[in-house]
Amino acid sequence: MSLATLDTTQHPNLPATSATLFTAKAAKKLSFEQIAQHIGRNEVAAAAIFYGQAKASPEDIANLSSLLEIPQSVLEEQLSGFPDRGRTVEMPPKEPLIYRLYEIVQNYGYAYKAVLNEKFGDGIMSAISFSTKVEKETDQDGNNWAVITLRGKWLPFSRF
Amino acid sequence: MSLATLDTTQHPNLPATSATLFTAKAAKKLSFEQIAQHIGRNEVAAAAIFYGQAKASPEDIANLSSLLEIPQSVLEEQLSGFPDRGRTVEMPPKEPLIYRLYEIVQNYGYAYKAVLNEKFGDGIMSAISFSTKVEKETDQDGNNWAVITLRGKWLPFSRF
Amino acid sequence: MSLATLDTTQHPNLPATSATLFTAKAAKKLSFEQIAQHIGRNEVAAAAIFYGQAKASPEDIANLSSLLEIPQSVLEEQLSGFPDRGRTVEMPPKEPLIYRLYEIVQNYGYAYKAVLNEKFGDGIMSAISFSTKVEKETDQDGNNWAVITLRGKWLPFSRF
Amino acid sequence: MSLATLDTTQHPNLPATSATLFTAKAAKKLSFEQIAQHIGRNEVAAAAIFYGQAKASPEDIANLSSLLEIPQSVLEEQLSGFPDRGRTVEMPPKEPLIYRLYEIVQNYGYAYKAVLNEKFGDGIMSAISFSTKVEKETDQDGNNWAVITLRGKWLPFSRF
Amino acid sequence: MSLATLDTTQHPNLPATSATLFTAKAAKKLSFEQIAQHIGRNEVAAAAIFYGQAKASPEDIANLSSLLEIPQSVLEEQLSGFPDRGRTVEMPPKEPLIYRLYEIVQNYGYAYKAVLNEKFGDGIMSAISFSTKVEKETDQDGNNWAVITLRGKWLPFSRF
Amino acid sequence: MSLATLDTTQHPNLPATSATLFTAKAAKKLSFEQIAQHIGRNEVAAAAIFYGQAKASPEDIANLSSLLEIPQSVLEEQLSGFPDRGRTVEMPPKEPLIYRLYEIVQNYGYAYKAVLNEKFGDGIMSAISFSTKVEKETDQDGNNWAVITLRGKWLPFSRF
Amino acid sequence: MSLATLDTTQHPNLPATSATLFTAKAAKKLSFEQIAQHIGRNEVAAAAIFYGQAKASPEDIANLSSLLEIPQSVLEEQLSGFPDRGRTVEMPPKEPLIYRLYEIVQNYGYAYKAVLNEKFGDGIMSAISFSTKVEKETDQDGNNWAVITLRGKWLPFSRF
Amino acid sequence: MSLATLDTTQHPNLPATSATLFTAKAAKKLSFEQIAQHIGRNEVAAAAIFYGQAKASPEDIANLSSLLEIPQSVLEEQLSGFPDRGRTVEMPPKEPLIYRLYEIVQNYGYAYKAVLNEKFGDGIMSAISFSTKVEKETDQDGNNWAVITLRGKWLPFSRF
Amino acid sequence: MSLATLDTTQHPNLPATSATLFTAKAAKKLSFEQIAQHIGRNEVAAAAIFYGQAKASPEDIANLSSLLEIPQSVLEEQLSGFPDRGRTVEMPPKEPLIYRLYEIVQNYGYAYKAVLNEKFGDGIMSAISFSTKVEKETDQDGNNWAVITLRGKWLPFSRF
Amino acid sequence: MSLATLDTTQHPNLPATSATLFTAKAAKKLSFEQIAQHIGRNEVAAAAIFYGQAKASPEDIANLSSLLEIPQSVLEEQLSGFPDRGRTVEMPPKEPLIYRLYEIVQNYGYAYKAVLNEKFGDGIMSAISFSTKVEKETDQDGNNWAVITLRGKWLPFSRF
Repeated sequence: MSLATLDTTQHPNLPATSATLFTAKAAKKLSFEQIAQHIGRNEVAAAAIFYGQAKASPEDIANLSSLLEIPQSVLEEQLSGFPDRGRTVEMPPKEPLIYRLYEIVQNYGYAYKAVLNEKFGDGIMSAISFSTKVEKETDQDGNNWAVITLRGKWLPFSRF
Repeated sequence: MSLATLDTTQHPNLPATSATLFTAKAAKKLSFEQIAQHIGRNEVAAAAIFYGQAKASPEDIANLSSLLEIPQSVLEEQLSGFPDRGRTVEMPPKEPLIYRLYEIVQNYGYAYKAVLNEKFGDGIMSAISFSTKVEKETDQDGNNWAVITLRGKWLPFSRF
Repeated sequence: MSLATLDTTQHPNLPATSATLFTAKAAKKLSFEQIAQHIGRNEVAAAAIFYGQAKASPEDIANLSSLLEIPQSVLEEQLSGFPDRGRTVEMPPKEPLIYRLYEIVQNYGYAYKAVLNEKFGDGIMSAISFSTKVEKETDQDGNNWAVITLRGKWLPFSRF
Repeated sequence: MSLATLDTTQHPNLPATSATLFTAKAAKKLSFEQIAQHIGRNEVAAAAIFYGQAKASPEDIANLSSLLEIPQSVLEEQLSGFPDRGRTVEMPPKEPLIYRLYEIVQNYGYAYKAVLNEKFGDGIMSAISFSTKVEKETDQDGNNWAVITLRGKWLPFSRF
Repeated sequence: MSLATLDTTQHPNLPATSATLFTAKAAKKLSFEQIAQHIGRNEVAAAAIFYGQAKASPEDIANLSSLLEIPQSVLEEQLSGFPDRGRTVEMPPKEPLIYRLYEIVQNYGYAYKAVLNEKFGDGIMSAISFSTKVEKETDQDGNNWAVITLRGKWLPFSRF
Repeated sequence: MSLATLDTTQHPNLPATSATLFTAKAAKKLSFEQIAQHIGRNEVAAAAIFYGQAKASPEDIANLSSLLEIPQSVLEEQLSGFPDRGRTVEMPPKEPLIYRLYEIVQNYGYAYKAVLNEKFGDGIMSAISFSTKVEKETDQDGNNWAVITLRGKWLPFSRF
Repeated sequence: MSLATLDTTQHPNLPATSATLFTAKAAKKLSFEQIAQHIGRNEVAAAAIFYGQAKASPEDIANLSSLLEIPQSVLEEQLSGFPDRGRTVEMPPKEPLIYRLYEIVQNYGYAYKAVLNEKFGDGIMSAISFSTKVEKETDQDGNNWAVITLRGKWLPFSRF
Repeated sequence: MSLATLDTTQHPNLPATSATLFTAKAAKKLSFEQIAQHIGRNEVAAAAIFYGQAKASPEDIANLSSLLEIPQSVLEEQLSGFPDRGRTVEMPPKEPLIYRLYEIVQNYGYAYKAVLNEKFGDGIMSAISFSTKVEKETDQDGNNWAVITLRGKWLPFSRF
Repeated sequence: MSLATLDTTQHPNLPATSATLFTAKAAKKLSFEQIAQHIGRNEVAAAAIFYGQAKASPEDIANLSSLLEIPQSVLEEQLSGFPDRGRTVEMPPKEPLIYRLYEIVQNYGYAYKAVLNEKFGDGIMSAISFSTKVEKETDQDGNNWAVITLRGKWLPFSRF
Repeated sequence: MSLATLDTTQHPNLPATSATLFTAKAAKKLSFEQIAQHIGRNEVAAAAIFYGQAKASPEDIANLSSLLEIPQSVLEEQLSGFPDRGRTVEMPPKEPLIYRLYEIVQNYGYAYKAVLNEKFGDGIMSAISFSTKVEKETDQDGNNWAVITLRGKWLPFSRF
């Protein structure tokens, strides 16, 4: 199995911690599944920390430090601030895998809105009070299916 | 409960069928849940047909015709071609609900890619061999949560 | 005093209700302050309903109908759906007044983020669980000052 | 409490002073609230100086120098020019917190204009003769609310 | 001498009043110089009213009505609101004459900023408390020179 | 009085000479007014040379060399080519001061065109056979006004 | 031989005169070569008048009126103003023929600048004091070659 | 006479050979006219080689090596690949000289197409089977005129 | 089997002939395969004529007229000009099928260039002296494969 | 014959492996045809590996290592991750050869869609389950023709 790695020449906008974490991950030959298990978080959240898209708690930092053998002080310094989210993907995404997700929004955006509005009223599904996960299914013909679940709190528009 | 409607002055790029279908839906006061049940399809797919983003089968046309009391010949003519997908949402989306989905792709795009690649290898989750659904959950504190599931076939890159 | 009006040749993307409401407002020579008072909402919210950017409740519809002498059935039909927000302003805004607000975000965006993060932790100020108001102050030199208040619920990023 | 920090790999367009100031702030473990108090300015203004979006007066420089233990000559050289504002945020903002502010402008822009025009006449709210502040409120249910106030001088369009 | 006219098929975003005013101007064969003189305003301001970029006072409306023989009620209705400025020119401008002005900003923008900052301090030249005029000069070789003067109030950034 | 300086981390596209000249200007504590006087050119032109937007003549080079104590050979090498104009300002300008100039073009572009065409015929005001200057006026209330004059040769379109 | 025609559904931004002129040209089955000969202008200039990109003199109007049998009053009204140039081609051009010209600028732009600067000094080739023509050459192998000549006055940058 | 030079800080996307060639050209004080003569090519083509926009033949490399005293092995390595054309000019061009050429395409694009189509039929003028040259003319009044000739093979669209 | 149809509300930029041809095609229930066979052209070319992207010869017009029962004079008028190509697809394409082709160019563009350059030298594959076809293959597992062939004349860059 | 090379100053976004592989290719003077033969893959696929657009299998890595004399550990480290596709070409492509492919999509996009839909139904040609090849043909007149074949699995839209 191949592991996801980081080529910093292709991602000049990532925070310094991304290089630190990915280098250690490659050296340790760890998958995000293993890392997630170790720090008690979801795989996508674990990967998001590596890409500077999610905040690591002090416990996450301690656990990442021990698992990846990175001095805790280095991680504390690099992960102590607040993530500056949204810089990894240039929109529209050029990467085919990420583009497919973008295309789903482009094609089904108003269908989602219509169904959500009728089910919940006037509001939005939060992307902040939000979690997500990725699962793998294999059907009886041996085909693999990826299942991505998005779960967000419903926020009704305030009346004022 | 309010129903999703269409204001054609705001959607000049939708196909002619969208006006036909939404007008009838408003007159009949039907939700997409009711329409979906009647035609035996998922709510999101039903809404996608209304927005010209999914193909209606001959049975769908017959069922929509009877439910909405639109002459079958009208629907056949308007729905007989192939959808010209992607025109409903101008990217980046200005609509707050749809923007939240776009933001999820922007923030978690590379995290999804890393996790999917490690789980499945080099490839993509198809947005064509694909289905999606929307569910409503209410937690013990009475908060509502929207759950969107994306399920796509895994397509490995061909070796050539 | 002049009143805000709508020239539909300049706003082709507004919903049909905008023309209905603005035409009646002009005929009745009512300000948004008067309209807001009558329907018991904030002036900005009242104007947002006119621009199709906020949802009107059944009571709002009834009140607008009586105040503006628009048949209630017309307003019910035009306002029964869910607002398709975000279409009024093309970004970056060309209108000087609106541009100044955009410029404030452009100049102080990261300063707001830094201060908010330190005060509240990792999260965002909601633009949905949100209200806003406009006030006028006159200083001792007779200069007028506009004061815009933005008040949004703090949403911490979920840990997952 | 976490402190806002600067990862210069993510902000290549900031002035040299940003790195100087943020490095010292991190070493001293000071919040913008503490810094603002020390230099007698608003928190947002203090953060804006750090991001190169506001001018520091000679007294500000002296105070920052003593508080942060940066040689005054260094700060004088780096802060002596005129800010080149607007370079920190790439529009539309990708950062979720900043995007919410942008979205408020996008959704309520014309509502603000209508209300302001009716209250003040033909003109704009200045973003230059302008101040802003951030406050934290907690409601009786324990929810936190962020309150951002924008206060700008009203400038009527000259008649010529 | 030719007169400036309006071809509405090329300017679909202008307010309704533009067509009214330009049609009457063409019928009356009046130049903006003549119109400006009649209403006691600058030529550029007069033209700006025609393009919906400046507000007409009640006296302007009365004067335009009598000069152009447009019923005053028509002009009052079309000019009573607040201008929605900025929609006439799509940026970057394609029109060669307007592009030259844009190019001056592009080439000399920072030079203006440096000189203005050194002369006035940290601030901007207002485009609202602002007037402008166009003059024609002919040098001794018979060459014509256009002279455009921009005069705006200096607004220093507030300290807060 | 503060002097305009250059922070090269914010202007990566300027020619090498900009750093050379601005560094010397800061060391000598000279304003553009002083520099302009010394080389016998307008302030805006002097600043434009510093930003690589205007050509320096051999005499300018000699004068700048002596005033700023930069070896003449260095300046000759860095200033001997032809300016590659237009790279300093990214359009639309993010800098508030420069944006105001841009906004003037956006708002008054067609008004200028109409007035210029009626005064001069079919053509443009040259931005090449062109000079500009900045002046400061103070009115009786003590308010400062910036006056920018643009003077360009009128070029009629050739008939062919 | 086919003649160039106009399909107004594809050119919604052209002035009203374009439809008038092209309709008459099609009815009369005239080429631009014939039209140009009749009005004593270059073919490209003749076509440019048809596309609203060049001004027609009173004689041109009289000649076009007689040749195309369009009432002179109609042409006078439609052609009396000043062309609003630049609206025909959306840049980058999608049309393959026009794209090739664009590509020449993209590929050889700096080579032209270098050669022109060395030949003429610091300045530009005017696109206003400018003429152009199209010629056809056939080589000995029977291949056709298009030759486009651009001839513009050299304008040196003013020293100020 | 000034010579065209290269400031690599302003052209970060040029190939490595551009710096090599321009540095030698400056040291040798050679114009493109002299270089072109020496290698037996057109001036524009010579400049295009310097900007990485044209391929140098082995003879060109040998001639450039001897003229510019650059070791032939260096030039062979840097010029042996295939040009990656189009990266020098960012479109729309900000440089005034290059913009004028762009503007000619914008204004006369459809006029060229109409005339070329009528003269040659359905096809394009090739920008590949293509040559170009720059000439200088001086009229009897002493005015200089730049003449740019574009000559491309006519390619008819294939019928299939 | 469904047939490709045209919904003109979604394609406002197509030429008038597109509506004429597609309406007749729908009425006659003809596929592009049948139409192509009848007029002796490739299917893609036939469809391209319908979308205004290819020129119809007089014989094509006669054949289309008889097959589709459209008066020949109508087709002659609508098809007599030269196609204004490139307006059907807005780039980047939103339509998933067309996007896949775009993605192939995005991903393999430089690989194609490298291989073509090594095989043919410095030049391009013409898109004008060009033909294309679509074929259907079914493999032994019953999967369908689409095969698109692009065949263009190799054009070497001219040496000048 | 010239070989395709890489000038990293023009491709700053390529992965580190591109420089490694292209440097070795240049030193070994190998064409992609030779490399492809050696690793048993198609030429385009081989070039795509060099540009970071295709995944190399462990055997590919071993074969490339031996052919190019690059230590296997270096290649393993640089090629072990998953390609981050789509970053090589900035769209729209400026390179003339790649632009021609883009233009084919722009011109024939809807024609392909219509023909493919009629032949296969509602779906897309996969760009993932996909292979491509380049061939050279010479006709009897000695003209060279490039033939590019695109072969992708047909994916019907799922019904849900």
